[in-house]
Amino acid sequence: MNAVLQQALGRLGPLSPQLRDAMEYGLTQGGKRVRPMLVYATAGLAEDADPAAADAAAAAIECIHAYSLIHDDLPAMDNDDLRRGQPTVHKAFDEATAILAGDALQTLAFELLSNAEGRLPAERRLQLVQELATASGYGGMCGGQALDIYHEGRQIEAATLETIHRHKTGALIRAAVRMGALCSVSVQPEELDALSRYAEAIGLAFQVQDDILDITASTETLGKTRGKDLEQQKSTYPALLGLDGARALADRLHNDALAALAGLSYNTDTLEAFAHYIVQREY
Amino acid sequence: MNAVLQQALGRLGPLSPQLRDAMEYGLTQGGKRVRPMLVYATAGLAEDADPAAADAAAAAIECIHAYSLIHDDLPAMDNDDLRRGQPTVHKAFDEATAILAGDALQTLAFELLSNAEGRLPAERRLQLVQELATASGYGGMCGGQALDIYHEGRQIEAATLETIHRHKTGALIRAAVRMGALCSVSVQPEELDALSRYAEAIGLAFQVQDDILDITASTETLGKTRGKDLEQQKSTYPALLGLDGARALADRLHNDALAALAGLSYNTDTLEAFAHYIVQREY
Repeated sequence: MNAVLQQALGRLGPLSPQLRDAMEYGLTQGGKRVRPMLVYATAGLAEDADPAAADAAAAAIECIHAYSLIHDDLPAMDNDDLRRGQPTVHKAFDEATAILAGDALQTLAFELLSNAEGRLPAERRLQLVQELATASGYGGMCGGQALDIYHEGRQIEAATLETIHRHKTGALIRAAVRMGALCSVSVQPEELDALSRYAEAIGLAFQVQDDILDITASTETLGKTRGKDLEQQKSTYPALLGLDGARALADRLHNDALAALAGLSYNTDTLEAFAHYIVQREY
Repeated sequence: MNAVLQQALGRLGPLSPQLRDAMEYGLTQGGKRVRPMLVYATAGLAEDADPAAADAAAAAIECIHAYSLIHDDLPAMDNDDLRRGQPTVHKAFDEATAILAGDALQTLAFELLSNAEGRLPAERRLQLVQELATASGYGGMCGGQALDIYHEGRQIEAATLETIHRHKTGALIRAAVRMGALCSVSVQPEELDALSRYAEAIGLAFQVQDDILDITASTETLGKTRGKDLEQQKSTYPALLGLDGARALADRLHNDALAALAGLSYNTDTLEAFAHYIVQREY
């Protein structure tokens, strides 16, 4: 993934070195590469998946993730100085550059997807653009983020918290899995459905685990300020359900994810291992 | 154009009404609809252009334009309180909502383009996505804006100012003209080349005229604070070439635009009239 991203950055040209540097810096802060991993793991299920399309899909989705982190960290949003133990983009550069780097990374995602070489037919490549745009925009990540901000400091119910997370983080994880599958021309609708259910379960589990770690992990392990959610009066699963309740929910979602994979005729070991990792990770 | 945009906004759903309202507000501040007009005028040259594709292209490019204005107006960027005589999005809503509305409008552009119905083949629709992404991102609008910010308060030469404008505003105007032409399946490469030359000339002329109006027009006519460029120590064509020199440059570009159209076998009256408007407009 890093090699593919470096290649994309290398093609950007000399127009604005500062903007290029900020984009690169932001892309390295994505960290765990969860979404690209899901693209590659899902593309790897079928033997006829197009590797060039998988590279483009993985890079595009990581660009969207990186842009969202850069903008979320801005003073007007979460106002975070640290991300994975490093200064956030607006701290390492400046606010204007961070806004533009986020903007340009979003565009780069659609440049990479629409320019991808390989043997996928144009209809399918267009479908990949649709998947990513739908998951990232108003009806997905952006809308979920807006809903999250709107509810800051307000008492909310578990159903609303779930709506927030299904959009804010879940939509892009779902897109990663679906886009990986769409890299194979022969993918069947019922396979896409099963993989979507898997992705929805691990996406929400990922967020529940994030909430748990914000309370239980140390700032050092986490690479960001611990207890930030409480401080910002954000609703979290442990706050709504208690720590044990949140852990039980993560377990239930973990099981849902494995059940969704059970009907597939592929070797889903990697996706299963990933579901385990989601609920067992400590940072 | 407004009807097409309203339709797109109407399909956004109830997830986050505040974000939806901010997106709508930002889209109405675009104002002159210069880019959609260019899409429709260019699509109108050929008899076989697909109206649904032209609608999608025009709406998409206006979403990109609107997002760029919302982000440009932010306190960390140009810090403008007024746009076309109305409070800017971060003033009418708040900064976080303005950042997200800009982000979601950029995504909406790619949603609209990739979901467009009509009879264009998928290859061509993918090409429209490529055109828009290339023009909007690092190598186009975003890069130009970063370069502009980088040079604020610095002495620059006319060549650098031209590079800034050719990217910051020129790239999207060029994309509008090319995307309009690409809505016709039968468009020929040499026609695209001629139209690109036309667009590059009027795009730069548009910016030269903007610089002139910043000095000569009243704040009331302009709908934004007059003299803002001088105050922000931005380099402008009148500052580099004098007011007469800037006017001569606008005239030369006007002639370049008309010369580019001369070789086309279409009725280019509308595009000619638009070139006249660019250099004669008073706001």
